[in-house]
Amino acid sequence: MNYRNELNDMPSYDGVEKTYRIKVNANESTLGLPPLVEERVLNRLGLLAFNRYPNEEYYSLVEQIARNFSVDTSQVLLGSGSSEIIEKVFHAFGGAGHTVVYPQPSFSMYKIYAKAAEADGLPFDLDARFNLNVDEFIKTIREVNASLAVVCNPNNPTGNALTPAQVEQIAASIDCAFLLDEAYVEFYGRSAVNLVKRYPNLIVARTFSKAYGMAGTRVGYMIAQPSVTRMINKCFMPYHMNVLTLAAADVVYQMRNEFVPRIQMIIAERNRMSERLKTLPDVEVFPSEANFILIRLDAAQELKDYLETLGIGIRYFSPSAFGLKNCLRISIGTRTENDEVFSAIESFMEAGQ
Amino acid sequence: MNYRNELNDMPSYDGVEKTYRIKVNANESTLGLPPLVEERVLNRLGLLAFNRYPNEEYYSLVEQIARNFSVDTSQVLLGSGSSEIIEKVFHAFGGAGHTVVYPQPSFSMYKIYAKAAEADGLPFDLDARFNLNVDEFIKTIREVNASLAVVCNPNNPTGNALTPAQVEQIAASIDCAFLLDEAYVEFYGRSAVNLVKRYPNLIVARTFSKAYGMAGTRVGYMIAQPSVTRMINKCFMPYHMNVLTLAAADVVYQMRNEFVPRIQMIIAERNRMSERLKTLPDVEVFPSEANFILIRLDAAQELKDYLETLGIGIRYFSPSAFGLKNCLRISIGTRTENDEVFSAIESFMEAGQ
Repeated sequence: MNYRNELNDMPSYDGVEKTYRIKVNANESTLGLPPLVEERVLNRLGLLAFNRYPNEEYYSLVEQIARNFSVDTSQVLLGSGSSEIIEKVFHAFGGAGHTVVYPQPSFSMYKIYAKAAEADGLPFDLDARFNLNVDEFIKTIREVNASLAVVCNPNNPTGNALTPAQVEQIAASIDCAFLLDEAYVEFYGRSAVNLVKRYPNLIVARTFSKAYGMAGTRVGYMIAQPSVTRMINKCFMPYHMNVLTLAAADVVYQMRNEFVPRIQMIIAERNRMSERLKTLPDVEVFPSEANFILIRLDAAQELKDYLETLGIGIRYFSPSAFGLKNCLRISIGTRTENDEVFSAIESFMEAGQ
Repeated sequence: MNYRNELNDMPSYDGVEKTYRIKVNANESTLGLPPLVEERVLNRLGLLAFNRYPNEEYYSLVEQIARNFSVDTSQVLLGSGSSEIIEKVFHAFGGAGHTVVYPQPSFSMYKIYAKAAEADGLPFDLDARFNLNVDEFIKTIREVNASLAVVCNPNNPTGNALTPAQVEQIAASIDCAFLLDEAYVEFYGRSAVNLVKRYPNLIVARTFSKAYGMAGTRVGYMIAQPSVTRMINKCFMPYHMNVLTLAAADVVYQMRNEFVPRIQMIIAERNRMSERLKTLPDVEVFPSEANFILIRLDAAQELKDYLETLGIGIRYFSPSAFGLKNCLRISIGTRTENDEVFSAIESFMEAGQ
């Protein structure tokens, strides 16, 4: 059969994930919704008309988000997770002869989204400490005449972040679209959404999957100037969002103050875990502004295997992943979970001496 | 900014739909879920881990569907409504130099999906009674060396259907992919899923939106041979389905026998409405195997406007829509709703004499 030319080269994603007793491998929240929020979400779901195509539910959530950021509703688009937002932004600036520049190591899907968009993906290397040389990054974007530049801030899986001034420097210095993926920004506290009014090329993607504990619900959004959202919106087919997700996210967003204490807890736990991990000889700990910590040690794969025997899932990277050799990424869980993870790592390291 | 070349020509979809007291314009079920099913769905939603990325929920529904049709689980893919299935199938067989052939009038989105897939969309005209000349259709598909042929069966918005023998004739006579959109097949009763094992080019798309009253939940699926699903699956990004939709659909599918009485009711009501509409002079009624009826009358637009004043929403087609001049499509509701819609049409026609 005569498939799309580029489809043969596309990878497949498959398989069910392992089940872990302590699951700190996917940067999810290890907590469910706050009980009061969950109750209201379930009540709201019970009132929905499942049989009708989604209609005003989309706009209700858009209005809330627009109000919160003091932007017009025409500046907000919703997607199935920021994943779908990113996929569509890549599509909108992709196609033959279009180049997308993104740092590496960063979110591993950027490469796939570029491929799916039939664009040329051009990774830009972070330095040995995973810092982005902003001047060189800008220079590269201009030299290759990129259609889209992408930065994940704070960066996944390294955890470090650009300052708002650095983000602004990039936005101001390039003419092409600039997608800022702020999936983890609640754990950093320094969003660049307020720059959107000044920079017509800036697109900020946000998600409910991390700080709001809604990874299963698949909801994210983007904020940009109206001329940009108007074009990106063409990439979304009608009724791409379902009413259950929209209603649940609407309630969660109304009650987002309920999530502040747990975001603060995760930040405090991240800092505590970071300090504790630094006490271990032979473990390199990278600074993090997100809900996870990247570490490097010689016996990374063995540690991952050992933790698995204890029912603890952390993220191991293929040795071929740029810059991530012997690195492990540990998402922050509850205090109890973090303590158990730390003790296990400590035991492993001591046994290895 | 340097957008994808083809994006300028893409249309935008916008705007909130009107609210109607009797909404028979979108081929939705006018009934919510059966109370027992709704209760179980809500119970199930209350047990979900919102904070985890969807995992085994996808496969649980796939297994049920595969078992029901006696196919392998590798032959089933899920999407956000059959809309997303169709979008991805068009994408998989689209791209420069690929041609998609579909009848007209039919589901109006085929034209848009072809555009989004950057394929050449080639509509094939139905005859004056909306019948498909199968031999000529096959001839056209072969002549243009199409990559994909699409048939909606029963056809939306006309309501008529090809026989299984006609479907098989098409599948057997063309080499390219053949997408059979069975969105309304539960109201017809003659699915072609059983032909998939014999025809490696056949892809059947189904939905929960119509017979199962789940339009808001956005869930559909496709069945094809494993070599085909493997390629189409590459077009879906990870986590494209959310856990609320998957869990709700899983319960609904388990309890699908609960929907049989209402499907029978809709078929009976469709036949009753059809007979009644035929008693009206100057109204042409087209035969239907779906959950709607297409009619034609000189004063179609005036009738649509009149019904709106009564809070009744039906589907009116732009005069430029091929073959649908002065046509109206009326979805089948409950007996009470249908009676009120009929009385209103009758009054309008009598007043016009």
